[in-house]
Order: sequence, then structure tokens, then C-alpha cells
Amino acid sequence: MQFLKTLKQALEGFPEATLEPELVERVREAARLCRIRAVTMTTVADSGHPAGSLSSMEMCLMTYGVAKIGDDSEKNGNNDRVVVSHGHVSPAVYSVLSCYGLIPEDDVLAFFRKAGSPYQGHVVRQLPGVSWSTGNLGQGLAAGVGFALAKKVRGEEGRIYVLMSDGEQVKGQVAEARRIAKHHALPNLTVLVDLNQIQISGRTDSIMKADIKKLWEADGWEVTEIDGHDPAALYESLRKTGFSEAPQVLLCRTVMGKGVSFMEDRPDYHGKAPKQEEYERAMRELGGDHRVLERYRELRKRGPVSGPPFQVTSPEVSIDGGEPREYGPENLTDCRTAFGNALGDIGEANYEKKGKGPLLVFDCDLAGSVKISDFAKKCPQWFFETGVQEHATATVAGAASIAGCTSLWADFGVFGISEVYNQQRLNDINGANLKLALTHVGLDVGEDGETHQCIDYIGLFRNFFDWKLVIPADPNQADRMTRFAVTTPGNICLAMGRSKVPVVTTEDGKPFFAGDYQFRYGKADLLRNGEDMTIMCSGHMAYRAISAWEKLREKGITAKVYHVGCPLSIDPEAVAEAAATGNILTYEDHNRHSGLGSQVAASLVENGLSADLVRMGVHRYGDSGKSAEVIEKMGLSVDDLVRAAVNLIRK
Amino acid sequence: MQFLKTLKQALEGFPEATLEPELVERVREAARLCRIRAVTMTTVADSGHPAGSLSSMEMCLMTYGVAKIGDDSEKNGNNDRVVVSHGHVSPAVYSVLSCYGLIPEDDVLAFFRKAGSPYQGHVVRQLPGVSWSTGNLGQGLAAGVGFALAKKVRGEEGRIYVLMSDGEQVKGQVAEARRIAKHHALPNLTVLVDLNQIQISGRTDSIMKADIKKLWEADGWEVTEIDGHDPAALYESLRKTGFSEAPQVLLCRTVMGKGVSFMEDRPDYHGKAPKQEEYERAMRELGGDHRVLERYRELRKRGPVSGPPFQVTSPEVSIDGGEPREYGPENLTDCRTAFGNALGDIGEANYEKKGKGPLLVFDCDLAGSVKISDFAKKCPQWFFETGVQEHATATVAGAASIAGCTSLWADFGVFGISEVYNQQRLNDINGANLKLALTHVGLDVGEDGETHQCIDYIGLFRNFFDWKLVIPADPNQADRMTRFAVTTPGNICLAMGRSKVPVVTTEDGKPFFAGDYQFRYGKADLLRNGEDMTIMCSGHMAYRAISAWEKLREKGITAKVYHVGCPLSIDPEAVAEAAATGNILTYEDHNRHSGLGSQVAASLVENGLSADLVRMGVHRYGDSGKSAEVIEKMGLSVDDLVRAAVNLIRK
Repeated sequence: MQFLKTLKQALEGFPEATLEPELVERVREAARLCRIRAVTMTTVADSGHPAGSLSSMEMCLMTYGVAKIGDDSEKNGNNDRVVVSHGHVSPAVYSVLSCYGLIPEDDVLAFFRKAGSPYQGHVVRQLPGVSWSTGNLGQGLAAGVGFALAKKVRGEEGRIYVLMSDGEQVKGQVAEARRIAKHHALPNLTVLVDLNQIQISGRTDSIMKADIKKLWEADGWEVTEIDGHDPAALYESLRKTGFSEAPQVLLCRTVMGKGVSFMEDRPDYHGKAPKQEEYERAMRELGGDHRVLERYRELRKRGPVSGPPFQVTSPEVSIDGGEPREYGPENLTDCRTAFGNALGDIGEANYEKKGKGPLLVFDCDLAGSVKISDFAKKCPQWFFETGVQEHATATVAGAASIAGCTSLWADFGVFGISEVYNQQRLNDINGANLKLALTHVGLDVGEDGETHQCIDYIGLFRNFFDWKLVIPADPNQADRMTRFAVTTPGNICLAMGRSKVPVVTTEDGKPFFAGDYQFRYGKADLLRNGEDMTIMCSGHMAYRAISAWEKLREKGITAKVYHVGCPLSIDPEAVAEAAATGNILTYEDHNRHSGLGSQVAASLVENGLSADLVRMGVHRYGDSGKSAEVIEKMGLSVDDLVRAAVNLIRK
Repeated sequence: MQFLKTLKQALEGFPEATLEPELVERVREAARLCRIRAVTMTTVADSGHPAGSLSSMEMCLMTYGVAKIGDDSEKNGNNDRVVVSHGHVSPAVYSVLSCYGLIPEDDVLAFFRKAGSPYQGHVVRQLPGVSWSTGNLGQGLAAGVGFALAKKVRGEEGRIYVLMSDGEQVKGQVAEARRIAKHHALPNLTVLVDLNQIQISGRTDSIMKADIKKLWEADGWEVTEIDGHDPAALYESLRKTGFSEAPQVLLCRTVMGKGVSFMEDRPDYHGKAPKQEEYERAMRELGGDHRVLERYRELRKRGPVSGPPFQVTSPEVSIDGGEPREYGPENLTDCRTAFGNALGDIGEANYEKKGKGPLLVFDCDLAGSVKISDFAKKCPQWFFETGVQEHATATVAGAASIAGCTSLWADFGVFGISEVYNQQRLNDINGANLKLALTHVGLDVGEDGETHQCIDYIGLFRNFFDWKLVIPADPNQADRMTRFAVTTPGNICLAMGRSKVPVVTTEDGKPFFAGDYQFRYGKADLLRNGEDMTIMCSGHMAYRAISAWEKLREKGITAKVYHVGCPLSIDPEAVAEAAATGNILTYEDHNRHSGLGSQVAASLVENGLSADLVRMGVHRYGDSGKSAEVIEKMGLSVDDLVRAAVNLIRK
């Protein structure tokens, strides 16, 4: 299929203003071959979405044709990127990538949707030419916006292409992403929408009517309507989008199941593979050889070789973490202010410094409360306001973070994780490099009340596999953890309350988390020592636990006090030491069913340890009031802790 | 303040076509008094959002004035409802409610935002006149749509009014809700948007530019622009919305901080209470007596009396659960089909039956896969297609379920909980009556791959306080659990995989979950008995565990096998019995860190029990392939279970 490789050379980077008739014919022929592959792979797998793949075929073929991908440009950052938001048209994507020689044809035809193969039902980032793992509809545009933003900040050439379906146009996150692109003036972004007018359950108009053109126009995008099966129209329209200052969308009129008569304009084959007889008929219509089926079915039985053959790499970002600040015990400071101070320091140490950054900081209209205003002032080109649009923001920030930037998004806990849990899950799946600074976690939100209390963040993050979660006990640890998060690759969440808290000190009154203290992920902090029992706490409960330790000492009870700043990775040594005291009290400003206490319980049992365990924590939605009062109403005051400790000992 | 109560009488239900000048003056005077209260309560609390409350004041005053609330109409369902989506303008809402005599003036002025008081920072459903607890922006319109839908289905009179801010207009869920209202032709819905052009961080145009009028028009709403401080314009425009067939939005031009010169058109007082001196100045301008402050501050020190004084009640819905079906061991059936069959039965037993239902069933374009098509055919007026718009759907369904309907939303696990976690949290806070049927949970999604694998649903639901979660082991239990969920009040999730599974039988081959079997929430099912160890499993792992039990018996090892169908409420008896065997293996198609195994561990420790525990489950994102292959690749096959059991025993 040599002509396919030379076809890509003839299209890539738009060497001509228009597509010559001879090239049009070659694209048509390539589309025919790709259709054969797409239908074949779904039949071999007996699973997949053939009809949408056929309608998106020319869009895929032309986009991947003109896009600079899979060469050295990726290393120097001047490549193009393609995001396929309707990831279920993977048969189209895989056919096109195999035609252009980016993935091996036999492998994808034989192992599509087979366990162990990288050719998943929805496209994944492990594959060359696929910039973002998608599948959950409506999320690809925000990823494209993130990539476009990263390019703009890094001053790179290249375009971002996002392919979408029409069924997903009504998803709210799409509109949010559209506005962010417009607001931040991203001229390097082109969207293609496959208007085949059919989604799983029927015609788009009957499922959820929407005037798609008006929606894009209302958000200030330039809209061009074209025939999505016409190679020349696609080529020329795609090329034109490169000359505009506004983000561009091509609404591509297509036919569902295009090229296979019995699939055309029918919802039935949205998510259903053809049967043998249907396959043979399709091959007759497409001019394919139906006998290849047996060969691929045989191959499929024998494979695939385990593990994905492709590597995922993100460009490295160098950020200087600066020098830690020290907060003395004479003042109360809130951890979010300490975070904001450290972030400002880091901004200063890296902004406009050669080889440093970029560090993109995102705000959903809470900059003052989440303490990123100082950074915004110091590093205006690295600061992005995205409005009350958390879903798109989570994805924009996540995508930018694998495209040569480190991203940091600061928001209230309830908006940065509870509201966008699935977006953060997709950042996990995509191996992003996002720093999530959550403030106002736990009951410590001030007077905002139950809807604002993020009492579930540990319970949410423990569902992920690669996110790290760090919770500072005081401003000094917040400073250290901020510098750790920003300079350590991967998704890391820093979770802080709202209130001012005392600096945690050693018994002789020196700041515990300053001076020689080194933050190590997974290590619990032994704040106080004792023999009779152990209090394990996290975040702003630490200073309360120390007060309780003092009161208990007056009663003749000595306790160990551990601060567990990394509750996803319980320190086994600390748990063993705690178990040795025979009595453990976990004490957290978090749902007691799903947070620290539950993690400690699991660690005890799995390590074959035993101890009497009482889990103190949030057990109902909280009140609206001053944080200390809300904590008290929840039965989590220092006196409550002392009482619980005494009861535990006397049991 | 007798004139205020008579004012409500003069406005309620639009007795006149226009507002007489004398009434206009009375509204203006009421607005002045309400402004005094709003500023006073934020000053007393030293917390809250005064400026937005002042801009929304006439909107609140007029909406609550014309709306039929707080009387007998609520019982017969012909009342109006008000949803305040920008819940932070609670000072405006509380001032107006107190002016109209719906809540006591002294209480709210003294105890606003004080722990223990119902006058939370964001409005809560416990209060008369407040239909939905809000606070997280952008979610109120969907609640309003749910109420409007419920009224339409129940054939009730009355209108739904939704008040919103301009900052939240860019939130994606708003657009989704708008489309659902339009698609399902809800003429009983009026929205008022406070266009004060300021949000927390600055002017709306600089934070996130949006053409709000175009956005509403693009979704087919009728838009009217008015002066939001003009009582006559508000009255007449609100009245006119009652005569249209399309949903209506009033864009109300207002001034932030209206009435207090130093707050007007400035972002500073968005979320900040006035200081003493500022308060005195504000009172001078508003003609209020600043000396009341001391009185309320004194009162505040003494209160509030604990517990909310108001009751939340939802109209009862009667649904006949019908007769259970029985699935024999001769066939494989998937649980979702058994659910669909039961739902169809229930539809038939209740649709168009006097005094029964309504049972509203919602679909996000997956009716065929989630098996609600039969219900849709049998009960067309109770079936609602809402498209790929999960966020709004979760809230629409939740709100409808407290307004005289039972709601059921069926979707893939990843869309019904992972994607909309916070919406389901708000359904928890609002005490809704939603039935959530999740299919394709765990790795059992077929070939869709990692983005579609909902391996975290237990880990998510355990963060809530009132949701119930039930997981059937087989089609018979799915049938019983479906009937339980639909006939039991409250939020209940039924979670099922995709694949066909064998019917679970007793040792002598009879269906375990049929005949005399009664489902009891919280009770674990002892599927097989033994002495040496215990396997605790859930969902479709049950039949695998039984296979393992047989293989272990051949090796001379006897095991108890428990199916834990209610993992949020671990059966203490079962755990005690399991602990007595000394060895427990938890076996789940769910993240092993956050699911059944973790719940069992916590139960063991808290009950002072000990046992050797091994937690088998999902420990990375899964492959794309046939479910059985994906399970095997994860190390969760029957043979893996047998091996793990043998290793546990021999340890």
C-alpha cells in the first residue's frame, strides 16, 4: 500500500492550496480501503461501532493526512495533535493510522477490542496519533483546548484538531470548553463535527433536539458547513482554518454507515458489528475480500502479545521549587495562604526564566479565596481564568499538563474533586501532570454550609491508581508540600482547609515542619510520643490532637500522635507502632466511613495487626457556621477527642 | 409589618394584569426593608454575600410575592415552587421570606450562618419556600426542570420559578437543563437571571465572556430583557410568562449592591460582610436603625435552639411492585435484562392505574443497553429521553422525585455515578427519592475499555449518608432488588454488570433467590457453607465464588461463601461468622482499595474481630475485551480465586 504513505506526504502540512483531482481520487480510494478495514475489524472482534466510523472516515483520513504527527516535530513541540472526542469511532481511527503506516495493519485487524491489546474499544493515548484517551462523550474538546493553550504559552507552531460526534454536542462540558477557547483567543484550534444525525437510540433530533450551528455561533466560534465525505472540501476548509484568528468549527454533513448500503442512515449499526453474511455483503459493496476474515480470526486466537507496544511520553518540564519559607509559632496562618505564598515564590523563581516552566495556573472565579492572586500578578501569562466551568477546566488543565507544561488548578474541594470526579479519573487514565490545590476541604469551609463541605476527598481519591494526595498539618507543611507537588511529576492533590491554624511545634516549641524537616511522600509524622494509645489524624485536626495529648497527659494517659499527611499511602511503620499501643483513635475532618479511619483499618487487617480502633469523623452533613463551631457540633472538638480517648482506654 | 403580609395577598397569583402605582410604592418600601434585613444579617453573622443579595432583591420579592407557596396548595400539588440557583443570595431570600411571614424575622437576623440554625449560608430545602438546597452554582435550573416535569406529568397547576445569577450562566449543566426543558415542552417554567455583571473575581465579561441572551435563544427559549429593580416590569413580565407555550427567561438588568452606595457596581462585597462603620453608613442610606445590631448580636450569643424547626416532606407515591419473576437455572440471563423485565412489569402494574405512580424513567441515549425500552413502550408518558446530558439528568430526576413522583434513571455506571458524583451528593443532601439503575459496572462492560469501567461505585456511594446501594448476584436477585428499590422511599442504587450470568442455586440446584426468598436490606446471603475459610463477594463474582467453592472442596478445603449485596451496610452477623473461620477472602469486581474488601476490613476492626484477610479486586485500569477475558487478565478468574484461597489457608 505504498500509495497510502505517499498520500500522507502529499497532504501533510497543506503543500497546495487546493486538492488536485488526482489526489481527490487517491483519498477516495484510501477511504474505500479504510472502510474495508473498519468493517473487518469490528466483524473480527464481533464488537464495536462500525456505522459512526464509516461516517467519520473522510474526516479522520483528511485530518490525520494534513496533521504533522509521528515525526520529529513531536520532540520539538511543533507537531500537530489530533483528539478524537467520540472515541468509539476507533475503527475509523485505527484504519486510518494503519493506512498511514503509524500502527501495524495486521495487529489492529486481528486484536481490536481484545484483552491485552492496545487497540481498545475507545481510542487510548498509548497509540501514536492519539493525544488523549477518550470514550466518555463530550470531553475531547476540553482536552483539545488544553493542548492549544499549552502550544500558545510555549510559543510552538502546530495545530490542534478535535473530531467530535453530533450526539455529544449537547453535553455541557462542550460549551464550557468552547467558551474557554474563545475567551483565551486560541487561533490554533480546529474542530470537526460529524453531523450524521444519528446517535445510539435514534435520530439526534428525536433524542435531544439542538441547533448545533447556533450553539457554536452563540459562543463566538466561526462556523463552516461542508460535505463531510468530500475530500476537496475537507482539505480546503481545514487549510482555511489556519488563517483565522478565531477558533474554527467545521460542521461536516455526513451519512451514518456511509459506503455500506444496509448501514446507511440507520441507527442499528451504531454499536453493533456485522454478522458473517452482512460482512460478506459489505465487502461486495466496498470491493473487499471477505476471505481475510478467517485469517484474522485465526490470528486473534493466538494473540495479542501482552502489554501495549507503544510508549507514552510527555515533554519534561523543569520547575525550580525555590526555598521553603518558615512560619513561626507566634502567628496563626491558614494553609491556603502558605500555599499561595509558596506558589508566588515558585512563580517568581521560574517566570521568564530560560528553560523553566511553564507552570500554568487555572482559576474558576475563586482566585482570592484560593490564594492564587499573587501568582496571577507575578506571572500574568501563566495565569488562566476559566470561570464557573469546572468540568472543562479539569480537562483543559489535565491535557495541557502532558503537552510540555505543568498545570496547577486551585479550587474549593467540592468543585475541584466532588464536582469533577470523572474528569480527574480521566486525568488519571491519561497519566497527566496536574497539581490540584483544593482549599475549603472538610467541614472547614467557614459558613458556606453543607453543599460546600468537601468531606469526601480521601474517599474519592482512593479510587484512583496514580493520583497522590497530600494534606498539610500546618502552614509549614503546606509550604513544603506545595514545593513537592509542583516539582514532582504526576497528578498530585494538595488538600487544605480554610481556617487559620497554629503552627505545629515539637514538644520544646520549635516548628515541627520547618528547618531540617524533609517531606517524604507516604511517611507519617510522629508529632508526640506516648505508650497507652495512638491518635492518628490528618490536616487541621493535628493541632487539636496535640491539645488533646496535653489534656490526656494531665489525666495520666500518654498517647502517640501521628499526622498522616498521605492517607492514600498509609505508612506501615506508623501503623505497626500504633497497633503496638493496643488502642488507636483515628480523628479526621472527613467522612469517617471513607477516609483515614477506613484506610488505617484496612492497613491493620492486611498487615495482620490488631488493636482496638475507634474512628472519629464526619457522620452527617454539617452545619453552616464558623468552622470551629461546625466541628464542635459534629462532635469533633478537642474535648470530644479527649473523652473518646479516655473511653477507649477504659474499655 | 402588617402591610407586608397584605402585600403578598395583593401580588399572589397575579390578581391584576398590571401593578398599580400604589402597589409599586409598597413593593419599593418592602424592598427597602428587606435590604435593611439582608445587610443586617450579614453584619450580625460577619459573613455572607450582601451585594448579590441586594441586586436580586426585587426579583426575590416579586417572585415570592406572586408565587403560591406555604399554603394548602402545597398539599394538593397545585402550588408554585421557587428554586434559587445562586443559593448564596440567601440574605435576600431570608429577608423576603421573613417579610412575607414565612420564617421568623428575629431568628433569621440573629442566627444566619450560625451552626445549628437552619439559616445556612446557602438556602436549604428545610425552609418554607425553598424547594431545593443549592449552593454549588449552575444546578438550580435542572432542579426547576425536574419540578416542572413532575407537575406536567401529574397534571397539576402551578408554575416553577428559578432564580439564577449571571456568573453561573457559563456552567455546562445550565445549557443541558435548558435543552431538556425545551425538548420536553415545559410551558410552566420561568427563569429570572440577575444580570448584575459582577462575579466574585470581577466583571463577568473579564472572568468569562458569554453572550447570555444568545445562549438562551440558541436553545429555543423566549427571552425578555427587563429592569430587574422595576417592580411593575417584573410583575408584568412574570405574569406574561404564564401565557406562553415555550419556557421563558427574564434577563433582569440589575446593579450589584443596589441601594448601598459604596457597594454598588463593585465586586468587593460579593462575599464580604460590612464592618461596623460600613454598616452604620448603609443603614443611614437605607433608612434603617443601626442600633438593632447589638440586639441581634446578643441574641446570637444565646442561640440557636438546636435542630431545624422546619420539616421536609415529599408527597407520597404509591407504586405496586408486582409479582417477582423466577429465572430457572437452565438459562443464562444478564441482571440488566432481569431489571428491565421487572421494570416493565411494574410499568404495566401502575401505568394509567388510579392512585398509582407516576414512576418517571429517564434515559441518556442508552435505553437499549440499559434495558428500559420495554418500559418506554408500555408507559410512554412516563418515559423521558434526555440525551447525552448526564449532569442535568441526575438533578432533573432527583428534583422530580421529591415532587410527587418516583424517579428512576438508568445509565452505565460510569455516567450515572462517576460522571455525576456531586449531583448524586446533592440528591442525598436534598433527601430525594431517586432510583438509579446502573448497568455495565465493574470490569463487566464488554469491550468498551478503561474509560467505561465503573470500578469505583462502592467507593463513591460510601461517601454519602443516606443512599442505599444494592448489587444483585443473579437475575433472580436483580428482580427482587428492582421491586424493592422502586417501592422503598429514598435514594437507592441498583448496580449490575453487562454479562449474562448463571442463576445462583442452592447446593441441590434450586434457584437461591427465588421462591420464598425475601430481600432484606443489609443482609448478606450465605450461598455455601464451610469451616476453613470464608469468601465474601458481590455481584457477578458470586457464581465464580461458588465454582471456586466446588474446586476447593475437591482439595479438601471447605469454605463459607457470602454474597454481600449491600456493601454500604455490612452484615455484622456475616462478618462475625466469617471471622470465626479465621480466614477471609474478599472477591470483588471493583477497586480493591475502596470497595467490599475495605468495608469488611473496617467492620472487622470496629467489631473487635480478627481474621487473616486477603482482598482480591481490581488493582489497575482494565483491558478492553470480552468481560471474562478482562476479569482473567486482572487476576480475578475462578482459578485465581482458588489459588488465593489455598495460599491463604496455608499461610
